[in-house]
Amino acid sequence: MPTLGELAQRFGLELPGDPAVAVDGVCGIDPGQPGKLTFLANPRLRDKLAGTRAAAVIVGKADAARYAGPKLVARDPYLAFARVAALFDRSSEFLPGVHASAQVAPGVHVPASAHVGAAAVIEAGARVGESVFVGPGSIVGRDAVLGDGTRLDARVVIGERVQLGKRVRINPGAVIGSRGFGLARGPKGWEEVPQLGSVRIGDDVEVGANTTIDRGAVDDTVLEDGVKLDNLIQIAHNVRIGAHTAIAGCTGVAGSTRIGARCMIGGASTINGHIDIGDDVIVMGFTTVTKSLAGPGQYASSMWSVETAREWRRITARVRRLGRTEERLAALEKRLGIERQDANDDENA
Amino acid sequence: MPTLGELAQRFGLELPGDPAVAVDGVCGIDPGQPGKLTFLANPRLRDKLAGTRAAAVIVGKADAARYAGPKLVARDPYLAFARVAALFDRSSEFLPGVHASAQVAPGVHVPASAHVGAAAVIEAGARVGESVFVGPGSIVGRDAVLGDGTRLDARVVIGERVQLGKRVRINPGAVIGSRGFGLARGPKGWEEVPQLGSVRIGDDVEVGANTTIDRGAVDDTVLEDGVKLDNLIQIAHNVRIGAHTAIAGCTGVAGSTRIGARCMIGGASTINGHIDIGDDVIVMGFTTVTKSLAGPGQYASSMWSVETAREWRRITARVRRLGRTEERLAALEKRLGIERQDANDDENA
Amino acid sequence: MPTLGELAQRFGLELPGDPAVAVDGVCGIDPGQPGKLTFLANPRLRDKLAGTRAAAVIVGKADAARYAGPKLVARDPYLAFARVAALFDRSSEFLPGVHASAQVAPGVHVPASAHVGAAAVIEAGARVGESVFVGPGSIVGRDAVLGDGTRLDARVVIGERVQLGKRVRINPGAVIGSRGFGLARGPKGWEEVPQLGSVRIGDDVEVGANTTIDRGAVDDTVLEDGVKLDNLIQIAHNVRIGAHTAIAGCTGVAGSTRIGARCMIGGASTINGHIDIGDDVIVMGFTTVTKSLAGPGQYASSMWSVETAREWRRITARVRRLGRTEERLAALEKRLGIERQDANDDENA
Repeated sequence: MPTLGELAQRFGLELPGDPAVAVDGVCGIDPGQPGKLTFLANPRLRDKLAGTRAAAVIVGKADAARYAGPKLVARDPYLAFARVAALFDRSSEFLPGVHASAQVAPGVHVPASAHVGAAAVIEAGARVGESVFVGPGSIVGRDAVLGDGTRLDARVVIGERVQLGKRVRINPGAVIGSRGFGLARGPKGWEEVPQLGSVRIGDDVEVGANTTIDRGAVDDTVLEDGVKLDNLIQIAHNVRIGAHTAIAGCTGVAGSTRIGARCMIGGASTINGHIDIGDDVIVMGFTTVTKSLAGPGQYASSMWSVETAREWRRITARVRRLGRTEERLAALEKRLGIERQDANDDENA
Repeated sequence: MPTLGELAQRFGLELPGDPAVAVDGVCGIDPGQPGKLTFLANPRLRDKLAGTRAAAVIVGKADAARYAGPKLVARDPYLAFARVAALFDRSSEFLPGVHASAQVAPGVHVPASAHVGAAAVIEAGARVGESVFVGPGSIVGRDAVLGDGTRLDARVVIGERVQLGKRVRINPGAVIGSRGFGLARGPKGWEEVPQLGSVRIGDDVEVGANTTIDRGAVDDTVLEDGVKLDNLIQIAHNVRIGAHTAIAGCTGVAGSTRIGARCMIGGASTINGHIDIGDDVIVMGFTTVTKSLAGPGQYASSMWSVETAREWRRITARVRRLGRTEERLAALEKRLGIERQDANDDENA
Repeated sequence: MPTLGELAQRFGLELPGDPAVAVDGVCGIDPGQPGKLTFLANPRLRDKLAGTRAAAVIVGKADAARYAGPKLVARDPYLAFARVAALFDRSSEFLPGVHASAQVAPGVHVPASAHVGAAAVIEAGARVGESVFVGPGSIVGRDAVLGDGTRLDARVVIGERVQLGKRVRINPGAVIGSRGFGLARGPKGWEEVPQLGSVRIGDDVEVGANTTIDRGAVDDTVLEDGVKLDNLIQIAHNVRIGAHTAIAGCTGVAGSTRIGARCMIGGASTINGHIDIGDDVIVMGFTTVTKSLAGPGQYASSMWSVETAREWRRITARVRRLGRTEERLAALEKRLGIERQDANDDENA
């Protein structure tokens, strides 16, 4: 049970008060739990600070004066909280060993520090790093590579020849290395275009639950170091995602698109194929990225706010009337003898 | 093979005709199948009533006079049909017992009324209720709880400490309790924010195929009694969904949002994080809910109808010209000496 | 290691140069790899042709004169490349046999030409065709049918009574035959409507990773021959998709909709329930199909292009001001004594 003094020293935080206060876990700020540590990062929760039942709070410098109780002061309270909370996180701990029901192909070496769970399958030629966790029901295809410290949570599929770096975390149900959607029109219907590439994933990448990443058609699909993907994302063949880019859930990226480093892509977005997105691009949620985007910059494709269905029926009717509205305006201009230079552009845009 | 007389008595339906007519299954109304029972609920199918080959029809009071053949009359024909059809549904029946290939951790008690299928895995500390069905390839994490009568169809993942109530049905491929997408920016890239909460699900909940529900960051993600989720839905960490709310497929709900009771959320919608949606809210399909919504009410964010691509190119060009259209209008107003009070609002809205 | 002469003869291609040049694989055009064959189909890559390091190129007739090196000339270079590349694709090869850890129910006949992988489960009454591949962790439900040459890649779920034709390919994580989202309002909340139909899939169909296809409520959900579905697609109960239609990723199709033959549906689209889409319809990506569409034709519902978030805030503000803009226009018309015939339509549209 760490004390505030120990936490301050370990994580480089300021400790204005009693170093002997101990905490046995973390909690939310409202209402908070006795004996536990919470944090304040979202300014909207500032009025919950005074009343929290938590034993101590991590606050930023600006908020330190607002709270008289036990506290730690951090430049970035959320980041400090993340690091402290990790002390209490047992969810990734495991006992090394291969479960009796796991199917490891002959010739595959599983280090003594690694774990292969119940009903997991590792096919021939796969390489398993130190301290790797292959969760129950996971499948590791032929000649796949799992770097040191990588974790396949449960029921993950890693396809043939897929390479994962170090400390990669794949959440349940994710599929990495499925066949890309390569089709050519033949005389009798679609013919499959073989997908001969694979997927290469760098270090410290996270892939969300039930997310899918297709293998490349000829070259590989690539996720560089530190990429973070949320749940139910589709990454098509030959996409390349730059280091430390984060993509929120339900987003789709079509084939052969390149996304730069340190981008943030909002949820439920759709990114067209064969385009280039620069470094440090922020894409708002629910955006359709139809063309290449230079970075840095913040982009959107539609920011319609939610209203009553009745109001939206009116708005859409007005948009559908815009051609008529323009005609009325042109008629007025004509009546007043105004000549427009750009009149021909209207329906040719 | 039940007779109309037996069905009328069992389900409280009116029977204007011969009680001895027997049916051995259910069918659609068009063309219908001899020997089977159908129903009429959708008014658009009313003209199919006379010609159906079904042995009998469940109709509402308004339609009863239109059909001379064998029939049952119900206040809600669809609901009555659902209940009758359940008599013929064998898909959820199972023989109790633990398959020889299932991996049940030592110390876990599987009641004699429960079934654990082939290649299923139940980890230490899990609690399995009476008449639970753990389908083939399903994984039940440490200390998870499955209430009486709950069914994991096949290849479901139930994470650590996740609690499911009674008569919950989880469809294949769903993942409940995956790590939430909690990240903090550190000096060298994203750092994981531990996700220490879990997921609590009430009674009579259904979760669709390949849907994902993340565990909470500190507190739990919660689905109250009677919530119904379709396929390929993403529920982020710390979302709370009120009782009897139904959400259609391909919808995403971002973190910490609260949705009230008895809401209906249309498919392919996106719901922002940290907002509140009241009780009895109806959200049209394909809506982006960007802000909190009071209930009851019906909401949308865009109701653009599908048209030829040519017509849509015109519509979007007009919308992109709107700034110019406003300028032309303002020039006319100026020429006519009209002074506007609200002119300054235009580009500051 | 085939020579250009052998490839030309086998695939009916023109060979203007040395037939003895041999290739040992395929590669991309830029930069290309020595010893391998590439192709040029995308006109945007034409300037990469001269500098490619590939040993030979498949080109169209129009580009043949541009390249002096070893080449094959095809009417459709992409299709020709697909067929040649298939010679080098080993990913679908397998050794017949049933893995010791597979669970095949008593009475199920697995032909000697078929493979059942590790931890796979085949339930009672299932029928397995010649040369079928049941990948690791896959589950084949009761009375399901797998036609000759069908492949379940890994960890696929095929539900009860689902029928797959010949040479069907199901990618990892796909779920076929899950319960449709059938609910009826009862006095105490939603009641399940039994889903008694199943799914019938024709020959040469592909289903993408983590895609879901629900079984029908009363009749079956149907995919005709040659249908191609990408990843993370949702097909609801009783949908019918015509032959050779292709649907890109992240698309949802709601219940009872019929899609014709040879359609192409762009990614991230949403298709309403109970509508009819004709043959040879092209739907642009990110379209909401709200109503029936006659074929042939090209359709869209919104083609907003991506811009800076600042520009989109302006555009949306102008759209929200459209009611006011129309009022200003009407005031001008009134001032000028213009009478409009259609004025009453405005807010009733």
